[in-house]
Amino acid sequence: MDPYARLAEAGLHLPPVSAPRGAYLPAVRVGNLVYVSGQVPIVDGIVVSSGPVGAETSLDMAKELSKACALSALSAVDDLIGLANVIQVARLVGYVASASGFYEQAKVVDGASDLLLTVLGEKGRHARTSIGVSTLPFNVSVEIEVTLFTHS
Amino acid sequence: MDPYARLAEAGLHLPPVSAPRGAYLPAVRVGNLVYVSGQVPIVDGIVVSSGPVGAETSLDMAKELSKACALSALSAVDDLIGLANVIQVARLVGYVASASGFYEQAKVVDGASDLLLTVLGEKGRHARTSIGVSTLPFNVSVEIEVTLFTHS
Amino acid sequence: MDPYARLAEAGLHLPPVSAPRGAYLPAVRVGNLVYVSGQVPIVDGIVVSSGPVGAETSLDMAKELSKACALSALSAVDDLIGLANVIQVARLVGYVASASGFYEQAKVVDGASDLLLTVLGEKGRHARTSIGVSTLPFNVSVEIEVTLFTHS
Repeated sequence: MDPYARLAEAGLHLPPVSAPRGAYLPAVRVGNLVYVSGQVPIVDGIVVSSGPVGAETSLDMAKELSKACALSALSAVDDLIGLANVIQVARLVGYVASASGFYEQAKVVDGASDLLLTVLGEKGRHARTSIGVSTLPFNVSVEIEVTLFTHS
Repeated sequence: MDPYARLAEAGLHLPPVSAPRGAYLPAVRVGNLVYVSGQVPIVDGIVVSSGPVGAETSLDMAKELSKACALSALSAVDDLIGLANVIQVARLVGYVASASGFYEQAKVVDGASDLLLTVLGEKGRHARTSIGVSTLPFNVSVEIEVTLFTHS
Repeated sequence: MDPYARLAEAGLHLPPVSAPRGAYLPAVRVGNLVYVSGQVPIVDGIVVSSGPVGAETSLDMAKELSKACALSALSAVDDLIGLANVIQVARLVGYVASASGFYEQAKVVDGASDLLLTVLGEKGRHARTSIGVSTLPFNVSVEIEVTLFTHS
């Protein structure tokens, strides 16, 4: 199945590409790499400022927000090169705004990883780093950054 | 205009390459990618230990420090490959030491992004990730990491 | 000397590849780049949940844990491409869980950098970014992520 069929089967729709919130681009292609800017959770066009996980936001909620970030990343990729031209997702970093004593960042970031597998299949598998941070832009709960490999 | 003319026009001077503060290199080239080490703000040869933004340091001050980091990154690039050999900045990550309740990391990192556009023009455009962290080495307010694309 | 002889000379043994703690891979190769997932400290098969450096964990202890992370990263590389096929380590990021007022993240991450030099010699030299974060997965003190260059 192609990624668009997988999106449809999962009942997912690519959101509009997130407008950069500063002097940068949504994604950049250099050679056969695509660097996507860090994506914050946007639902119905609104940035979700849900604060640290483990305090203001639950793990389950944060995992859903993490999926939203990954879906926005795929929108940026689709706009730049077309999803069908992804050969492999290479790297994903998940930054999780974390309350003191919250150590389940990996479970939050699984939302993003799962979304990539759902849409891209084996091409969505990636190396990953999950970390906890004190605060994120716009007081979001999670931010996701991906780097992908495409044709040269 | 070449990057040196742009620097001169903006009244900017490349500082000396920051000596690594540990067992690493200022920048590494592999194939057509240049990875630059994270740069802390150095003004007149001194690391600026100005603490978290939103508490000890203002947004405006932090934005200037962010520019200083980006200028140091360009020095490392110039020393390794020469600025004229940059084809495209690919990725910039801005780590902002943030006081509780400070969510304008993106505005701080705009200082670095703007500096790259000033010096490199369209070649300075990049994908970007901005995050807030609790503390940075030497108690700096901001740290900037860039990855660039060059000739193979 | 090859990396295996260097490991033996240093009295080091590659640990088993860390099982991913979520929907990702230990390492991914795309073209001539190998992205390794963020590695937490594992000693005798157990994740070391030693908390923030500068509070629950000393700098010296954290530096040792940082070495363990780098050794795990090398295990993932060896499993994927074989250590002898590393041309150059390109990038290392060290995330250090930091108590308030702890600013010596670079010294902690030196443990990982030194380990790479010990095992890979000049091929182990890299660009580096060290940052402090509030919390890490599993309450570890340090997490290390590396990207390497190999044959195409």
